[in-house]
Amino acid sequence: SAMGCKNCCSICLQCLFGYETNVMLVINNKGVGALFRLIQFMIIAYVAVYVCWIQRAYQDTDSVISSVSTKVKGNILTNTSIEGVHVWDVPEYVIPPQGEKSFFVLTNVIPTPGQTQSKCPEIPSEVTKCESDSDCIEGHTEVHGNGVQTGHCVQYSDTIKTCEVHAWCPLENDTIIPKPALLGAAEHFTVLIKNNIQYPKFNFRKRNLLHHINSTYLKNCTFDRKTDPHCPIFRLGHMVTEAGEDFSVMALKGGIIGILIDWNCDLEFPERFCIPKYSFSRLDNKNPENNVAPGYNFRFAKYYKNNKSIETRTLIKAFGIRFDVIVFGMAGKFNIVPTIVNLGAALACLSLVTAICDWVMLTCMKDLKCLWLNHFHVVPELLPGDCYL
Amino acid sequence: SAMGCKNCCSICLQCLFGYETNVMLVINNKGVGALFRLIQFMIIAYVAVYVCWIQRAYQDTDSVISSVSTKVKGNILTNTSIEGVHVWDVPEYVIPPQGEKSFFVLTNVIPTPGQTQSKCPEIPSEVTKCESDSDCIEGHTEVHGNGVQTGHCVQYSDTIKTCEVHAWCPLENDTIIPKPALLGAAEHFTVLIKNNIQYPKFNFRKRNLLHHINSTYLKNCTFDRKTDPHCPIFRLGHMVTEAGEDFSVMALKGGIIGILIDWNCDLEFPERFCIPKYSFSRLDNKNPENNVAPGYNFRFAKYYKNNKSIETRTLIKAFGIRFDVIVFGMAGKFNIVPTIVNLGAALACLSLVTAICDWVMLTCMKDLKCLWLNHFHVVPELLPGDCYL
Amino acid sequence: SAMGCKNCCSICLQCLFGYETNVMLVINNKGVGALFRLIQFMIIAYVAVYVCWIQRAYQDTDSVISSVSTKVKGNILTNTSIEGVHVWDVPEYVIPPQGEKSFFVLTNVIPTPGQTQSKCPEIPSEVTKCESDSDCIEGHTEVHGNGVQTGHCVQYSDTIKTCEVHAWCPLENDTIIPKPALLGAAEHFTVLIKNNIQYPKFNFRKRNLLHHINSTYLKNCTFDRKTDPHCPIFRLGHMVTEAGEDFSVMALKGGIIGILIDWNCDLEFPERFCIPKYSFSRLDNKNPENNVAPGYNFRFAKYYKNNKSIETRTLIKAFGIRFDVIVFGMAGKFNIVPTIVNLGAALACLSLVTAICDWVMLTCMKDLKCLWLNHFHVVPELLPGDCYL
Repeated sequence: SAMGCKNCCSICLQCLFGYETNVMLVINNKGVGALFRLIQFMIIAYVAVYVCWIQRAYQDTDSVISSVSTKVKGNILTNTSIEGVHVWDVPEYVIPPQGEKSFFVLTNVIPTPGQTQSKCPEIPSEVTKCESDSDCIEGHTEVHGNGVQTGHCVQYSDTIKTCEVHAWCPLENDTIIPKPALLGAAEHFTVLIKNNIQYPKFNFRKRNLLHHINSTYLKNCTFDRKTDPHCPIFRLGHMVTEAGEDFSVMALKGGIIGILIDWNCDLEFPERFCIPKYSFSRLDNKNPENNVAPGYNFRFAKYYKNNKSIETRTLIKAFGIRFDVIVFGMAGKFNIVPTIVNLGAALACLSLVTAICDWVMLTCMKDLKCLWLNHFHVVPELLPGDCYL
Repeated sequence: SAMGCKNCCSICLQCLFGYETNVMLVINNKGVGALFRLIQFMIIAYVAVYVCWIQRAYQDTDSVISSVSTKVKGNILTNTSIEGVHVWDVPEYVIPPQGEKSFFVLTNVIPTPGQTQSKCPEIPSEVTKCESDSDCIEGHTEVHGNGVQTGHCVQYSDTIKTCEVHAWCPLENDTIIPKPALLGAAEHFTVLIKNNIQYPKFNFRKRNLLHHINSTYLKNCTFDRKTDPHCPIFRLGHMVTEAGEDFSVMALKGGIIGILIDWNCDLEFPERFCIPKYSFSRLDNKNPENNVAPGYNFRFAKYYKNNKSIETRTLIKAFGIRFDVIVFGMAGKFNIVPTIVNLGAALACLSLVTAICDWVMLTCMKDLKCLWLNHFHVVPELLPGDCYL
Repeated sequence: SAMGCKNCCSICLQCLFGYETNVMLVINNKGVGALFRLIQFMIIAYVAVYVCWIQRAYQDTDSVISSVSTKVKGNILTNTSIEGVHVWDVPEYVIPPQGEKSFFVLTNVIPTPGQTQSKCPEIPSEVTKCESDSDCIEGHTEVHGNGVQTGHCVQYSDTIKTCEVHAWCPLENDTIIPKPALLGAAEHFTVLIKNNIQYPKFNFRKRNLLHHINSTYLKNCTFDRKTDPHCPIFRLGHMVTEAGEDFSVMALKGGIIGILIDWNCDLEFPERFCIPKYSFSRLDNKNPENNVAPGYNFRFAKYYKNNKSIETRTLIKAFGIRFDVIVFGMAGKFNIVPTIVNLGAALACLSLVTAICDWVMLTCMKDLKCLWLNHFHVVPELLPGDCYL
């Protein structure tokens, strides 16, 4: 019937626009009320101060993508008995020369010039000393040896015999490390670090040569935490000192220094507040008890051909400091998803407050308990005996 | 008593299986009801569209781990007055030669052949010009100089005297950069980039040589955003153009180009939809006001020994373009934790709706307010005077 | 009036300390009650077991920052008809020599000694063979060629004529790869990997040379998953085997092996439980159908000057295995924000339980429905006819 349909429509509309709310009970007790407000306040304060202000949990984050190029400057003059006067410039002491984000600066050198492929006695050690050919095994390679044994036992010096090896001869003798370090003056070298970063999610780009710094300043400045905190030119010695090390000691056997550039930025603020923070720390372990191959060194060779077209080489055991530029950071910007998640979570926790107060009330305060239970519970069997109306 | 125990058990069971629900009040007002439904709808729409569809917040994510190898191809013939006809091949112009993810292609060269360790006058500049020996300090090293001063003032040319230095002589004179760039034809070189990635959390591996591409195609293709978007062979000139630069200009002084490979994947979809997106951008700053050492260059040397066993070297100031392959991306896959977190947060926000509507009702609509308050509040003192029954 | 103000204050205080709680209805039905408790239990179990225990969602996380240095040891003697007896040591077969986190070990070699800048016939192929000068284009560069064509067609051998090129001549002929690999014995080489990591957010540092390992042990151990899982010295052959490859096969054409170091740590536990887990996998694709340039190789050259000061070079096509040390990991530590977020989300989901049970009750159980509706709904028109009091 038309009446029925009209009724039906009315019910539908009521259904659609009927608004549901929880029935609330306001209990007028100062104790529980104060507890209720206190917990409510604590949760709201936590959300406002810690989540929003300190942790910035309303932000979406992105990791930094970075590009680094480095350029070392400086010259050193050395005067040794073997090589005489020698000036070291950048192409000689920076390895590799390309100026990438990890660069090695030579500080100490054990050169072995004139090596050719031939046979010679091994450097004496526990395992290489011998009495006769029977102590040497043809084709054998010692783990810490310099070549492949020929099977012969030959004179190393007047008194010592060692196994002969096929190798680049004469062998390197690295038992004595030059002290002080040959290129200890490398601490006065400077390095220019150019670092461009981007946060692709926020389409944000910046470089460590900040806008407000002019070219004249850049040509003469060196980094100093107090006076020149934004100068991208660093003195090697200064970085090592800031890492808590002594350059002259470190130069002897080498090591690894991390140049950490921290680009943590809050992109809610203007772009000029996003500036890099530099810090330095030694990345390898200095003097632990259980160390193998302490310091940082490697061997490389320069190859020559002599008049007779025989290949000779100068082997160089290079000690030095490897500088690793490590760029890290997160940028944050307001995003609705983390905001909703954190807000929702806080709201859900607010609902816990009511549960806690209910529990306090029910356990501690008999009068209120009865009031509450009498009015709204419909299961009389569950009411405690002293609450019955 | 048995009776008591039975009663006790019954209470326990009731306690355990008694189900608690909020008492709801349905208010039949079109205004508030419409507001209620509208806000509810907005929140549900936000969750469905933005959180689930756009941000894919129901997914757990993992960062990409990648391995890159590169191989450049191409030859150039140059004809200069100093060196004559010279063909440059890959081992000469790609530095380092290993084909790592960052490779440098030589585009311009200032060679200084025949350098030996000796003494020579400095290149003239403000600080190196001198009148007499007293203007030069023995052992002094100029920051932008080429060696260590001997303390003598000598003739550089007929008219100019400069301080003499210990150095690799003759000194490099890099004031005139060849123009056009010596190896400007490098724009026709191609580079094959092989990139294998994995998302360890999801045990997913893929490479940029996609399955559906066959070997014949790979041998002849070059990358083009429209016609060959999946070809892993790139023409250097094309990449520089896509980065918005002019190769012939950039070749003069060098620079850094980023080859960005974006592996963002939704692993809910089949594996074949996870394909790399290539983009190119210049990473160093071209022409800012406050620049030091613009472009990209470094010096390296080839060492020789001449007949008399004296070491000579050819110093090369190398200008060129460093290509940095930067692989980034996040993969997402359904995970119950972020789903619950986002769902829970949305639900908690839905509970806000009721609070908002309550507030609207209590402030705006007197009649409903009285109805609500009369029925369910037990604190008559709080009721406004006009609501008393 | 004073009375009014007193009343006003009282209302304010009541407002401030009035505590609001939802009015609850306890329904005593075993079916719905059991369902209610079951869902409640499932959600609480999910939170406790999965979120807290397995996913550790109460933790804040940080990504690892790492520094790696490597050092290879070993010597090989080869005896070839071209070069005679030759001993290969580390400076010759490890490229680059610095011991960075990605290092290449030479396993196979095609040397081309005595190259000079001159003219010579191309290596015969489909595109380089010619009949007369008209088949060759002056200045043309073949994509897979070795130089720049002079425009002449010359004898390559008695029967074959090819286009002449400006190039480093004689050209390399890499059609025949030495088999077995020249330096196949490289599988016995060992590499020491030193890895220092830090989690800056938690101020946590550690290295892969663990505290409880002493120097004597480190000098003689090699990594073995069962007997020496913490030894940082790895035999190359062992790593390749663990990656599921055959060293002698891989040595022929080269490849890329990833040394994955997993530093995932739960910093709730003492520091000694945070130990690296090593795994190995091949990163390039071995034998897919659509491969270009399979394996891993590159060319480099050693430059010499002969008596007449003409530059000659030895070109080396180097096949070998690149080892990429990939350090990854996340550290987690308790933090209040993710805890609150996850707890809040779980609580919000618990509120869903009530909604589900209400729906079950309203649809399935007529009696309870009427009870519920009669007592608390104030809109009689909406009550079903059979519920009227």
